[in-house]
Amino acid sequence: MKRNNFDHLNCSVAATLSVIGDHWSLLIVRDAFFGVRRFDDFQADLGIARNVLSLRLKKLVDEGIMTRARGTSGFQEYQLTPAGLDLQPILLAMTHWGDCHRPHPQGPRITFVDKTHREPVEKMTVRSQRGQILGPKDIRAKAGPGFHSGQKDVPLLQTPATSPR
Amino acid sequence: MKRNNFDHLNCSVAATLSVIGDHWSLLIVRDAFFGVRRFDDFQADLGIARNVLSLRLKKLVDEGIMTRARGTSGFQEYQLTPAGLDLQPILLAMTHWGDCHRPHPQGPRITFVDKTHREPVEKMTVRSQRGQILGPKDIRAKAGPGFHSGQKDVPLLQTPATSPR
Repeated sequence: MKRNNFDHLNCSVAATLSVIGDHWSLLIVRDAFFGVRRFDDFQADLGIARNVLSLRLKKLVDEGIMTRARGTSGFQEYQLTPAGLDLQPILLAMTHWGDCHRPHPQGPRITFVDKTHREPVEKMTVRSQRGQILGPKDIRAKAGPGFHSGQKDVPLLQTPATSPR
Repeated sequence: MKRNNFDHLNCSVAATLSVIGDHWSLLIVRDAFFGVRRFDDFQADLGIARNVLSLRLKKLVDEGIMTRARGTSGFQEYQLTPAGLDLQPILLAMTHWGDCHRPHPQGPRITFVDKTHREPVEKMTVRSQRGQILGPKDIRAKAGPGFHSGQKDVPLLQTPATSPR
């Protein structure tokens, strides 16, 4: 069995991976963003085994990412909750990385555009509150009360290495 | 064996998951951002089995996310490549989601701050090129030349569902 809980690592990345770290879970969420609602449609789109899909959907419901209810058509339908919709920045950041570093030989697969202006959305970028674009060397990690070490300030990308897990 | 290639799904999210979709891979990358460089330090920090760590590091090197070279100390060191550094928006988006939806009972674990102003970085948000914050309903997916269906414009979060895989 694959380990799917990283609570011992005490970090929000690990906490998020515990919820959507499974490959299929994030692809199911992606499909839900595209309007897929029914079990058979997820199954047909992803080519995933039915028992695996069933387990993944159950976990997404248990984790509060999706809800399951009978739709107007009479079929059970899965929909994203607000917590599920909040995954969009992660999906967009993954899309942009894939577009850049694993491009399709024939050109872009899907471009996400602003509905009103039909322009591609801005590339997902880390910014300061003042709107400046920040690269890895412009950022520091600061330990808060939920951090389990006595270390209070963690330089990023500095040597010698100390992990702030 | 776990499936770790989603090329058949023809989407940049799937392409990205093929590279960093494994739980451990993203946590190794996270540690690398925090300055971890050596095999033993990754191992101690993550509590990961040595053979698994070895495989994951090899894949990250093969995928162009990390390089391996002898450091000034004489030890082999792993460092992020530019493609690896470009994963930062994904990690930050995951951090912010976890902070919001899986908070630590004692408060924030780690806050990422702008080095210059010591203020938390802006929450990862989807924006238009004009700077407007966009929610899921403000975005459309537009198929490009790398998309394998004849469908040209894909509404997000609309019913009836059609997946733009």
